[in-house]
Formats: sequence, structure tokens, C-alpha cells
Amino acid sequence: MSTSHTPARIFMAPAPRAVGDIFTAGDLERLRALGELVIHEDGPVTDAVFAEQAAGATIIIGQFELPAERLAQLPALRVVFNVEGNFLPNIDYGYCFSHGIRVLNVSPVFAEPVAEVALAMAIDLGRGVSRSDRRFRDHTERYGLDANRDARSLFRQKVGFIGMGDLGKAILPLLAPFGCDILAYDPWLPAEYLTGLGCTAATLDQVLRQSGTVFVVAGATSQNQGFLGVEQFAAMQPGASLVLVSRAGVVDFEAMLDAAASGHIRVATDVFPMEPVPAEHRLRTVDNLLLSPHQAGAMDGALAAIGKLVVADAELVARGLAPVMCKVAQPESVTLFRSKPVEKS
Amino acid sequence: MSTSHTPARIFMAPAPRAVGDIFTAGDLERLRALGELVIHEDGPVTDAVFAEQAAGATIIIGQFELPAERLAQLPALRVVFNVEGNFLPNIDYGYCFSHGIRVLNVSPVFAEPVAEVALAMAIDLGRGVSRSDRRFRDHTERYGLDANRDARSLFRQKVGFIGMGDLGKAILPLLAPFGCDILAYDPWLPAEYLTGLGCTAATLDQVLRQSGTVFVVAGATSQNQGFLGVEQFAAMQPGASLVLVSRAGVVDFEAMLDAAASGHIRVATDVFPMEPVPAEHRLRTVDNLLLSPHQAGAMDGALAAIGKLVVADAELVARGLAPVMCKVAQPESVTLFRSKPVEKS
Amino acid sequence: MSTSHTPARIFMAPAPRAVGDIFTAGDLERLRALGELVIHEDGPVTDAVFAEQAAGATIIIGQFELPAERLAQLPALRVVFNVEGNFLPNIDYGYCFSHGIRVLNVSPVFAEPVAEVALAMAIDLGRGVSRSDRRFRDHTERYGLDANRDARSLFRQKVGFIGMGDLGKAILPLLAPFGCDILAYDPWLPAEYLTGLGCTAATLDQVLRQSGTVFVVAGATSQNQGFLGVEQFAAMQPGASLVLVSRAGVVDFEAMLDAAASGHIRVATDVFPMEPVPAEHRLRTVDNLLLSPHQAGAMDGALAAIGKLVVADAELVARGLAPVMCKVAQPESVTLFRSKPVEKS
Amino acid sequence: MSTSHTPARIFMAPAPRAVGDIFTAGDLERLRALGELVIHEDGPVTDAVFAEQAAGATIIIGQFELPAERLAQLPALRVVFNVEGNFLPNIDYGYCFSHGIRVLNVSPVFAEPVAEVALAMAIDLGRGVSRSDRRFRDHTERYGLDANRDARSLFRQKVGFIGMGDLGKAILPLLAPFGCDILAYDPWLPAEYLTGLGCTAATLDQVLRQSGTVFVVAGATSQNQGFLGVEQFAAMQPGASLVLVSRAGVVDFEAMLDAAASGHIRVATDVFPMEPVPAEHRLRTVDNLLLSPHQAGAMDGALAAIGKLVVADAELVARGLAPVMCKVAQPESVTLFRSKPVEKS
Repeated sequence: MSTSHTPARIFMAPAPRAVGDIFTAGDLERLRALGELVIHEDGPVTDAVFAEQAAGATIIIGQFELPAERLAQLPALRVVFNVEGNFLPNIDYGYCFSHGIRVLNVSPVFAEPVAEVALAMAIDLGRGVSRSDRRFRDHTERYGLDANRDARSLFRQKVGFIGMGDLGKAILPLLAPFGCDILAYDPWLPAEYLTGLGCTAATLDQVLRQSGTVFVVAGATSQNQGFLGVEQFAAMQPGASLVLVSRAGVVDFEAMLDAAASGHIRVATDVFPMEPVPAEHRLRTVDNLLLSPHQAGAMDGALAAIGKLVVADAELVARGLAPVMCKVAQPESVTLFRSKPVEKS
Repeated sequence: MSTSHTPARIFMAPAPRAVGDIFTAGDLERLRALGELVIHEDGPVTDAVFAEQAAGATIIIGQFELPAERLAQLPALRVVFNVEGNFLPNIDYGYCFSHGIRVLNVSPVFAEPVAEVALAMAIDLGRGVSRSDRRFRDHTERYGLDANRDARSLFRQKVGFIGMGDLGKAILPLLAPFGCDILAYDPWLPAEYLTGLGCTAATLDQVLRQSGTVFVVAGATSQNQGFLGVEQFAAMQPGASLVLVSRAGVVDFEAMLDAAASGHIRVATDVFPMEPVPAEHRLRTVDNLLLSPHQAGAMDGALAAIGKLVVADAELVARGLAPVMCKVAQPESVTLFRSKPVEKS
Repeated sequence: MSTSHTPARIFMAPAPRAVGDIFTAGDLERLRALGELVIHEDGPVTDAVFAEQAAGATIIIGQFELPAERLAQLPALRVVFNVEGNFLPNIDYGYCFSHGIRVLNVSPVFAEPVAEVALAMAIDLGRGVSRSDRRFRDHTERYGLDANRDARSLFRQKVGFIGMGDLGKAILPLLAPFGCDILAYDPWLPAEYLTGLGCTAATLDQVLRQSGTVFVVAGATSQNQGFLGVEQFAAMQPGASLVLVSRAGVVDFEAMLDAAASGHIRVATDVFPMEPVPAEHRLRTVDNLLLSPHQAGAMDGALAAIGKLVVADAELVARGLAPVMCKVAQPESVTLFRSKPVEKS
Repeated sequence: MSTSHTPARIFMAPAPRAVGDIFTAGDLERLRALGELVIHEDGPVTDAVFAEQAAGATIIIGQFELPAERLAQLPALRVVFNVEGNFLPNIDYGYCFSHGIRVLNVSPVFAEPVAEVALAMAIDLGRGVSRSDRRFRDHTERYGLDANRDARSLFRQKVGFIGMGDLGKAILPLLAPFGCDILAYDPWLPAEYLTGLGCTAATLDQVLRQSGTVFVVAGATSQNQGFLGVEQFAAMQPGASLVLVSRAGVVDFEAMLDAAASGHIRVATDVFPMEPVPAEHRLRTVDNLLLSPHQAGAMDGALAAIGKLVVADAELVARGLAPVMCKVAQPESVTLFRSKPVEKS
């Protein structure tokens, strides 16, 4: 089956990512095979750089500023690859939607590595894995049943999800062999959809009150800042586990630490309201807490996968076909997600 | 379908387990419904106790001494339930085999909880979960990619098993969603059997040299003491992980610690040659090591499951049917497994 | 999480489907709860009907004519639900794409029932199920091994797919327990995507030459009419099976019948170039052929599911969210698919 | 790990199976590597043949007569491989059990091919696959919805099992992707065991009354002849399906035909009380009936697998290890199963 097409013109300026971190020589070769490839890694994409190097682009790779005025200079543009995990406010989405320009991001590459860590965290909290290691090193370990007095197995547990997007869907198959009964709360998804995933649609309150483990995988939006707070943590079962692997912004972080410190719940978090966390921050000594320095997704393997995703979709777009690997910006949701870059202290 | 049978006579003396830890009131009710139930928890089963209370037993629950002389006094005996995870040298197995007496243990209850922890350990070693938590508490955490320079994902990894008994088979389904390529070495099992489980049969050397993660799930036998030593750990890939959850006796423990301390491999162990581990033991400060104080199997939930297994099989045996829940002693292997109780320091 | 929205105005004219076949009273209730619901079932949607009843519509359900002139009269329109399994040429897609109007169809409801039948067909051809039944009724049955001389099991077979869209993806999980090695040819999808589904990307020739069973699940496009012909069937292995469940247009139907009649391959087909098939057509007596009168998808259960899909997505759209249940028309592909209604003889 | 052992002496007389049908040259080579292999294919194993050729055997392959008197002449005998799918009354099992001789059969090779056909039969009955093919050939086919008025999908159906032995357990994974709710009735198995398989333990009556499809996979025993009769079929739901793939003896065959002929249920059967079925038998014209001439298991592939099973287990036994591939006769059940060879008309 052949599809006629004109050669692509690709402008790539992936800062703050380095070209070499996300594309292999082979990947770049495949891009060049589509037409012309212009790479800009030498400083920001100024208007001069843009005018000179992006002219005629059909494909853009990068998350530099793309307001309507710049987009209007690229009448042949078909797709913009944001090589980050979120849709950023760098581009005029409305212009793109009305002009048939696809905006894509590479969030799918992070789903697997984060899901893997989220599963390990859930078992760790339930079974006391890192706590026991810590005690061993403190000469306070207990053995066998004594170490397990508050242990909870994930097998056949009732597990809850807050959010059921790509990340939640990446965790579900990892849970499947544990035979869990899974509740899911996601205000953007109909019950029919959640049922199709093998979950039971639930309210937030049901998820909190009934689950032995709660996975918080909701992205931060303009509407859900801090929606998990004192009241929500209090609603959780004593000894239940909370695994936070999406965005710190969705929780009241201090309330979450309090809930762990009090022994009411156990918490694992990969995200923090401020990174790096200040040296003197109390969380470093809180018990019932598993601390992960925003490392669940950012693996070399994930970076390498970015290039593969972009190249595969670029090849499709160049042939006039729809992309299938990257995440596609949707008009209904893209302006809602506002992933504020983490504050640097 | 009815099966005629005479009432059972059950003698239960489960020390060192307490009856109340493994049987609920409902469980005991089901046992009593089979005939007569005599429970002895008040000290050892002396000859006097045995003569008086075990007489006429068709079912014995416990792991007290049962030499041929005692067994010969119980002509109606059909089954002995050892409520431990191993076949112990307390009983004359030969006598039982030639007299149609089933000897059972409850090892199946431990497979799931150990498998769960083994999976968490494998991810922990590969992704640095507990190490990062430790660094956080030491104010030395790094973030994102910096925390992940040596990270390895389990997804699509080549994974090896040393041993593929009940425990290995309980880990396999948990690995299934990770799409691993699985090598298995088990000298007691034919390649056809391992293939049927979705594994590739391999030599010990192949497992060690090719695997990113090696699960050691072989039971200790009279023949395999310390068979994983300096040479075997050296054969492993740099940065590979070893998860030891069966018996400390199968490894040269000091060599294993050396291999971790040197940074050649990463090790998680749930078992130790001496428990509790002496306070001054060097393992408490070794890096690349995840320490678990023999807690992978010994959960309350597992103890509760023991009672269910025993009752379900006792009901079958009382009806003249074969047991299906417990592990059945086999003449070919039972004398080979010699699970020495852990030395108390 | 709240989303503000104005009441919907829904215009429904689903002919040739009857409202009562696809919506329950409960479904209609849910639609009414979104705002206003106008149903037109009384003849075609003439311009007069359209002007009177569709005015102000935000949601349209049906596949009546919607050229740009009509669409231009509906400035509030957000979504058009085509309650058929294909995107039909009834609507000006370009207008919709540039005006932010979603066009949806309900093809997902047909994937499961068709996949189920496709699996049964594949086993039937390999194991001779319906052939043996036919022979029994002809008094020519053979027994046991004699009945199985040319039998082929699906277990661990090499299986090929031509096309890997929604239907192919619905068949994959049904094949999973058979441990097949799966080749997939789909010119619209990158190898990376097919690998992610657990398939090996292959050329058409590889699929044909190497597979014991070939599932033809490619939709008919303007480019692939009759692309499976004499040469392609000849390339298949002797005794291999072909299961055609998408569109008759993608095969040279007479060549396919010849390949079955000659005994070279076995064929199952749910689709025909002309329906009903003429009474005297030779296919009624061809051997190595399993005939299914376009019944794989058209179940009552699938019709009932249509209503659920439409209602769930209508509720999302009314809240300003993206639909997730129906198939969304994509600018790159919608004009390529031209599903010609079956010719009536 | 080495196990010391003396060379095996193997006596093979597999009639009515031919050596060449079940063993490849490579298989025989592996057997010869264990010690000495004596093959007798030239007529029955008379006492003279036995005395001359079986003397000193440690391993016997075949199902010729082995009463206690013969067994007593083979003091080194360790295992008898019955290369049939059932334990036959050819051997003195009691003698074997008390003398440490394993008796094995090869039933596991038949589980997969039978399960595959059972699944196809269940879909066929529910979706009318072979019926529609028959109608097509009779010029009475209907199309689309008209062909599907009584169609039932297996997806999310309530499905029942009568018996849950090796065959039932081979069907379960094939059903897994259909999301069925599975009831199982097996008087030999505890509810805990069935739960562990993902089934709900049920009474026979519950299975019959609640299931859309009933798989009859119970072996024939001395106790369950014809236990599914008029009353049981009447208890089934109108339009439900019955798939009989174990033994004809467990049903009242005429009552089953009546239930199908009346239109109350749909029936598929692979087994018959008399094979071949008499030419004039009414079943050849009964509707709602799918006839399979005892072909579900007897594939060439299954025969080839027999050799692999036997060789793998023979190698284990020769090394003093327990067999793991074949089915092992159990004292509690072997005398119960009395698989009468099918009557020849």
C-alpha cells in the first residue's frame, strides 16, 4: 500500500534535552531519510534562529516558544513533537487545532518505568521491605512473624486508583496477577470505560475509605490543586498505603506527611512540592514514609525510548498517516493540564 | 456423588505452632465434623501422651517425633499433616510410603507472600528504591536521571531462576506482565517441563552469565550446600541482581556479601546462616545489599491459610480421596531435603 | 472536580437503525438529563426537518446527510455520533476538523463479537469442527486419529495478521493463551507499535508464507481493493487457514474460492462481495470453506452496546471533555476508508 | 547436582499404539542412553515373551497385563508408563503402591487439543457458526442480525464446569480473556482449591441452572454413570449450551439428544456411547447439535507429545527422581476411574 508524499523538513531543537540523550545515530538516520533534518542545539531558538532554520518546517521537534505568530510563518507544519512528558504552555494549541497541526508529547515512555516503581512501592509499604532494611542497619530488626505484625499482602487486596490515565493503565497489568479488586475514581472517564479496564468505578470517598492501597496517578490540573488533604487522608483505613507517583500538586503535602508521621497511613512519594527538598525538611525523619527523589520515570531507558517514539510517528506523519506512538494533544483537555515545572529552591 | 467412610479420629499437637494461630474456631468446627478431634498443646508429645491421646488416630496434625515404633501403633493412620513449610526429619518416611500413609506439609501457603516480596526486592535492586530512601534520610539523595544512572528496569529483562519449585512457580506469574525472557536451571526438572512453564531450560552457568536478575529459590538439600560461591557470583554480569529467598545454606554467604560489597552485583536476602544476625556483623553496613529479616513468608495471613489447607485436605482424606491442597511427600525427594532449623546464636 | 457547561441540545435521527434497538429507556433518560433531546424517526431528515428540529444542536446522533451547508447552520455543534461501524461519506469531514466538531462511530462494539467468531473459525478450520459435523450428517464421519489426519492445533502456531486495527487488537488477547508466535502486516503502523502489542512486524509476503493461520482484518480503503489475489493465496502454506472477517473488498473473492476448492488452503469468510449471495453461487458447494452470513458482528448485544457508548461519550462531550468510548475520526485516515455499502442483488 | 544411579533396563510393548507413532528416533536414542531398551511390537506380551524380555526391567512402557504374579517377577521395577489417556484395569495397582512402583499415564497430552476444540464448540453453539454454514449449503442462510436472533456471546457469560480435573484446568486459561464468571462443581475437590483456580465452587444444580454454557469434563467413574439425565438437562436455562468432551458414560445420551432436539438446549459432543455411531442413528438429523467423532484429543501432535512425556519422566526416574510430566496414579482414586473402552458395534 503506497502513500504519496512530499519530502519532510524537520527542525529539531529539543533543549533542555540533548539530542544525543534521546536519539541514536540510527534514529537520526531514519529522520534524515524522510527529507531534510536541521538540528539546533546551540542556545535558545531566537527569532533569528527560528526565521533562518525553521522556515519551511513540516515537522518540529522541541518545546521552545511557538506562539501563533511563529506558527503562522510555517504553513506546511504538520506536527510538533514536545519531547517532554507533559503538554507545556509553550505553544498556541488553539492555533494548532484549527490549522490541522498535531501536537504530541512523549509521556508514554514514562508509564512503564513509573508503574514498575509504583508496584514496588506498594509492596514495600505493605510488607515493610525498606523499613526492615533500615532497622537491620540500626540493629533493631525483628525476625519472621515479629517483623510482620502489621504486614499486608497485595494479593486479593482491595486497591484504589485516583486517576486512570496512561499511568494508571500501565499499573493495572502489573497488579493483575495479584487478583486485586480494583476501584477507580476518575472524573474525566465514564464508568463504562473503567469497567472495560476491569475496574469498578467509584467516588473519591469510596476509593479512600475502602482501599488497602491507593495509587495517586492523577495529573495536576488547574482544578485539582491539593484536592487530597487532611480530610481525605483521615478517610483512609488505618494502616492503608498511599503511593503518589504523579504530581505533588494534587496533595496537601504537609497533611500527607502528618498522616504518615501519625502512623495513620503509610506513604510512598516520588514527587515533592520543591525539588531538591531542603536539607532540614522534616520529611527526612518521618516514619511510615518511603522517599523517592523523582526517579520513577527518568531512566536512561525511557530517554532512549523517546527517540524511537518520535521517529516512528514522524515517519507516519511524513507519509500522511496519523501518529500512533506519542500522546496527542486534545482540544478538550490540553489547556486544563498545567504542569508547572518544579520550583527550584 | 457420595463416598462412604468411617468417622475420622484426629490427633493434633502442632507445637511449636499454637492451635489458635493457624486454626479459627470455624476451622476446628469443620475438623470436629469429621469425627473426633483431640488437641494436645500442653508440652511435648511424650510416649505417655502419645499412647493415651493418639490411639486410633486416622489423621495426625503436627511435627512431633513419629518413628516407626510409634507409627506401628496407629494401624488406621492415613495422613500426617506437618504444619511447617518443610518436610522435617521427625518421621519415618519409608514406613509411611510402604503403609499408604500420606505425609503432607503446608509449604504452599508461603509461596505467594514470598513471591510478592521477591518481586519487590528485584525491582528495588534494579531501580534503587530503598537505597534512595536511605540516601534521602542521609541528605545525599540525587534527583531524576542523576538518581538513576545505574537503574535497570525489569521490563523485558533476561531473568534467571535457580530452582523452579513451588516458589519459583509463584514468582513466574508476577513477572509475566514485565515480558521478561526467563531462563531456569533446575537439575530435578526436565527441559520439557520448564518449557511448559514458559521458561528456557539453562545450565547454572548460563543463568548466572546471562541474567540481569537471578532469583535463588532452590531448597537446601544434602547435595547443594553452598553451591553458589565466589566463582558463581563472579560469573554474574556487573550490576546484576541476586534475590535469595529460599535457604541461606545454598550460598557461600560471605562470598555473597563480598560480591555485593565490591559493587560487582546487587543482593537482596531474606535468609541468613545464623538468625538473629550478630549485632556486630559486617552485613549491616554493606552497600548494594537489601536486608530482610526472614520475613518474606511468615505473615499472619500465611498462618491463617495453613488451617484452611489442612482442613480442606483432612476433609478429602476422611472421604477416602486424595489431598490436593498441601504438599505431598514423595519417596524420591523427601530424604534429600534436609532443612536444618536455623541456628540460634 | 467540576466542569462548567451549558445544557446540551441533542438531535437524534439514527435511521436505518431504530432508536429502540440501540437505546434503552435508561439510556434515553441519561441523554435527556444532559439538556434537550429531539428524536426524529419518521422518514428522512429533509431540509425542512433539519431546519426545524436540528437547530441549535450541540450533539447529533445519526448518519444522515451533513454537508458543509447544513453544518454551517449549527454553530454550537460539538459532536456527531455515527451509530454505524464505519465512517460513511455522509458528512463533510474537513469542515468538522477545522471547526472543532468531533465525528465518532461505534465500531468498538463490533470488535469483541467479531473476534470471538474469528477465533472459533480459526480453530474450526484447523481442527475440522464443522466439516466433521457435516460428515456425520452425511454418514461419512471418521473417528479419532482418522478424523484428524490433517488437523492443526492453534497452540504455539505461527499466526499472521493482515491489518492490526481495533479488530486485530481484539483477537490478540483471545490468542494469548495459545502461545502463538504472531506476525503482523499493517502498512499504517510502525514496527515499534506492533512490537508493543507482542507481534513481530512483517511484510505481507512473510505473513502469507510463514503463517499457519492468517487473519484478514484490514478495512477496505480506496487503495487496497482486491490486494489479496491469486498470487497471495498461492504464497500461503499448503493446508494453512485464512479467516476473513473485515471486508470482502480486500480480496479477489473468486481467487479465494479457487484456493479453497483446490485444497491448497482452508478459508472461513464472514463477508461476501454481494449479499445475499445468489442461490446458484458455486461457494455453496466448495469444500475447505466455512461460510458465515455476515453475522460475526451484528448481534443484539452489540446493538445494545451502541447506546451505552454513545451516552457515555455524550455525557463527556456535554461536560467539555474528550470522548473515550467511540472511535474518533482522524483527518489523516477518514477519507481513505470508503466502506461501500454491500451491493444488494 | 549429581545423582548416582544404576543403568535402567526398559521394556517397551506399547500396543495398541505403534512405537513409531509415539517415539521419534531421537526419543528412542534418549531412552537407550539410560541403559538397555527392549522393544516388543510383535504380538501380545505372552508369559513367554514376558519371561524372556521383561526380566530385570526397571521401567516398563505399555499397557499389557501386569497382575501381581508378573510384577513379583520384576523386583527392580520402578515405573510403569501406560501410554494411554486413562488408567486401565491391566495392572495390580495395590501391588504397585505397596512396592514403590509408580504407575503413570499420558493424559496430559490430550488436555490442550481437547480444550481447544471445547472452546470452539462453545463459541460455535453460542454464535451458530456451523449451523450457519449448514444453512448456507442448504440455501436457507439468513444475514446479519437475522442470523443472530438467538446468538449468545461467551464474553462475560456465566459458565459452568462439571468436573475440574486436568481437562477443565486446560480450558480455564482459554476462557480467561472472555471475562467469564465461572462456576465449578467437582465433588472430589474442596471449595478452597476451586477458588484458587479463579472459579466459584457450586453445586451441580447451581451449575446447571445458572450457566449459559456448561462444560462436561468429568471422567467416568464407577459412581457417576449417567448422572446427567432428563432432570439435569431440564434444569438448564433455555438456549444454554452443553459441551461434552470427556466420556459419554456420564450422561444419559438419549435424554441429552431429546433436550437438543426439543430446542431446550444446544449440545456439542465429542463422545458417543457406541463408536462408530450406527448409520441409522437419529442423532445425525437432530438440530441444535454439533457432532464431533471423538476427534478432540486424538491428534498426531498429541501422539508425538506422548513420547516426549515418557522420555522426560523416564530420565527422571532413572536418576532416582520423581516424575513430573505424566499423570501419576493415586491410591485414593485409581480404582474409582474405570474407563470402559468404547463398545464397538
